Order: sequence, then C-alpha cells, then structure tokens
Amino acid sequence: MPAADATPRPCAIADALELIGERWSLLVVRELFWGNHRFSEIARRTGAPRDILSTRLRRLVDAGVLEKRPYSNHPPRAEYHLTPAGRSLAPVLMSIQEWALHHLEQPEAGVMRMAHGDHEIDPVSSFACRTCGKALPKA
Amino acid sequence: MPAADATPRPCAIADALELIGERWSLLVVRELFWGNHRFSEIARRTGAPRDILSTRLRRLVDAGVLEKRPYSNHPPRAEYHLTPAGRSLAPVLMSIQEWALHHLEQPEAGVMRMAHGDHEIDPVSSFACRTCGKALPKA
Repeated sequence: MPAADATPRPCAIADALELIGERWSLLVVRELFWGNHRFSEIARRTGAPRDILSTRLRRLVDAGVLEKRPYSNHPPRAEYHLTPAGRSLAPVLMSIQEWALHHLEQPEAGVMRMAHGDHEIDPVSSFACRTCGKALPKA
Repeated sequence: MPAADATPRPCAIADALELIGERWSLLVVRELFWGNHRFSEIARRTGAPRDILSTRLRRLVDAGVLEKRPYSNHPPRAEYHLTPAGRSLAPVLMSIQEWALHHLEQPEAGVMRMAHGDHEIDPVSSFACRTCGKALPKA
C-alpha cells in the first residue's frame, strides 16, 4: 500500500499515465496506426488478453482517444478509430521507439512505419529548449 | 487470456513497454529527474505502493535504466540515479506531458521542468520525416 505520508506530485505526466500508462493501451493505439481496427485483429496482433482489451478499449473511447464506428447491424459490430487526440499520441510512440532502438538489445524488433503521402514516415524527433533555443541531448 | 491465434507483432515499442509500460516505472524516472533519489521520497512523491515500487526499482536497475549508489554503510542505504539510458527517457516523458497538456482536462496539473544551465528547460518537441523533410503534424 502507498506510504502513509504519500503526497503524490500534481503532474500532467501522472494524469496521462492514468490513461495510457499501461502497455496494452499504447499497443492498441499502435495497432490502429497500423490500420487494424477490429477487436479480433487488435487482440491477435497485440497479444492482449481479450477481457483486458475490452476494458482498455472502453476506457480509451470514454476518454476521447478512440471512437467506435459501427460497420454491421446484423450482427452488431463496430470498428475502433483514432480521434485527433489519439493520432496525437504518435510522438509518444515514436519517442518510445527511438529509445528502444538505442537502449534495448533486440536485433529482431520490428519498427513501426506510418504512411506519409506516397512513402513511409521515417520519423526523426528533436527536442529544444524554448528559453535558450538550444537542442536538448538526444537518446 | 490471449486470443488462441495470437501472433503479437515483433515491435520495438512493445519491447520497451515490457519495461516502462507501467505508470510507476515512468513516474520513478520522473521523480529522479526532479532530484529525489531515495526510496522513501520516491514512494512519497509518486504515491506508489512500496512493494510494487521495490519490484519496479529492481527491474529498472537490472535493465540498466537506473543505478544504485550506496550512501551509508551502517545501516546499509542506497540512492537511485539515472544512467545515460535512463536520462534518455526525457523525450518520452516530455512527449507524454505535451500530449497531456493538449488533450486532458486538468487545469491544476503540475508541469515538469528540468534544469538547463542557469534556467529551466521549456521543452518543445518536433517530429519530421527524414524521407521528405516535412514536419509531422503536432499534438
């Protein structure tokens, strides 16, 4: 249980992690970027347990990160799509990927690509300090 | 349980999330950036349950993200410090924070600042495509 004197820091990062700070949630978002929108495909390609996946999808829809779009009435079936807030998680996924490629040992890992017009994105991130204009050290 | 036909995508992001895809792990890293290096302070400021925190710290040390430095022999006590791999998680935390500030409702959230010479970092991230040179849409 939390320390008796726990006084968690008010923090935007902590607030975001309440929602996306669990690997299945971010892997769902990744899978939608890959173009898989249906429950069974998302379950298959993430490896997420189906009951946990249901809960995560519902929370992400409630939080406005995903939206559910019906594609069949008989039987009732829906697909999941990223909202603008969901698509805005691309930099989070990309910065995690950059970190992984530099700091984990995993020669066989797949690299996520997204379509960018007629080619695939080859993403490069940069962080700078608005105060002094200098670039921040990279991974 | 996972879908019977689960074939999880080989993915650097999934590999990273095995280690950091759990909010307490990233909150530990955040707390070290804030300059809190001792177990009791990390527990107090993250609100993490102490048993979970012990496990997370050990895994992060084993993975080379943190290192343990003794600061007392009687009784034996150690502090936790970020390794270069740990400091390289700054862009991950910053991109999560940027997303939170744009997409969550949380007027009272704290914003993480890091020292940058004589001032605090005011981080701004940008993502571009190496292939076409164009900036990617932002959060």
